[in-house]
Amino acid sequence: MMLYLGADHAGFHQKEALKRFLTTRKIEFADLGTDSDAPVDYPLIVEKVIEAMDLKADQAIILCGSGQGVAIAANKFEGIRAAVCWDEKVAKETREDNDSNVLALPSRHIQDEQAIAIAQIWLTTEFTNEERHTRRINEITKLERRER
Amino acid sequence: MMLYLGADHAGFHQKEALKRFLTTRKIEFADLGTDSDAPVDYPLIVEKVIEAMDLKADQAIILCGSGQGVAIAANKFEGIRAAVCWDEKVAKETREDNDSNVLALPSRHIQDEQAIAIAQIWLTTEFTNEERHTRRINEITKLERRER
Repeated sequence: MMLYLGADHAGFHQKEALKRFLTTRKIEFADLGTDSDAPVDYPLIVEKVIEAMDLKADQAIILCGSGQGVAIAANKFEGIRAAVCWDEKVAKETREDNDSNVLALPSRHIQDEQAIAIAQIWLTTEFTNEERHTRRINEITKLERRER
Repeated sequence: MMLYLGADHAGFHQKEALKRFLTTRKIEFADLGTDSDAPVDYPLIVEKVIEAMDLKADQAIILCGSGQGVAIAANKFEGIRAAVCWDEKVAKETREDNDSNVLALPSRHIQDEQAIAIAQIWLTTEFTNEERHTRRINEITKLERRER
């Protein structure tokens, strides 16, 4: 399992804080940018991250100012369930109920310590695998595959 | 412009509170369910709401326990930019920057008064129309239309 990281300029500094936490915990990750606070377009970063992922095993954490732009872009991809999390409770819930495989962090709305606490809960919480949740995830998959 | 509403069982009561607010403000809406707190699958409610929308003019507010399930499902549709909002600041930002056309509310994480305050800001904030934001939205559209 690989953990991919991606952020736009607004999320760059918080991504660096996350990397320090992951390194301390010996959690392997791959950072796909950005590498400064010079403006970049979040959909291009998200595209790099999602295309790198093996959906059977990998996870990703993506960051932008409000978390919304990166999450919207990521959810356009088949097999991606990206959740915008602002506290630990919602992070736990979206792993348990939605089996979210991408965590989107709203960097301008939460402190780095809060982002790390959210990531820690999200990375260590398992999907419940309950039938009602699996059924709803399968219904999302049907929405992805419908005719356009 | 029509405002569509949809919620699963976890968002049902908060949707009713929103309807009372909208009625007081004489804001027209169409409620596409659910109509009780009996369990329903959020992707089916979201599908009804999004398929009812005229993307050139309409907006929607969708509710579930964490806001994540309805937002993930909605963002699978072309032309939809659904934002999960937990406070007024992020609601304003996602209208201004992402031109979000669907508001997803985390009903089990916010009080009804907070949901109403978020909806009020979201409904009255305009997209900035700045070139950098428009460019990023167009990049999301490209992600939606890529080969699968």
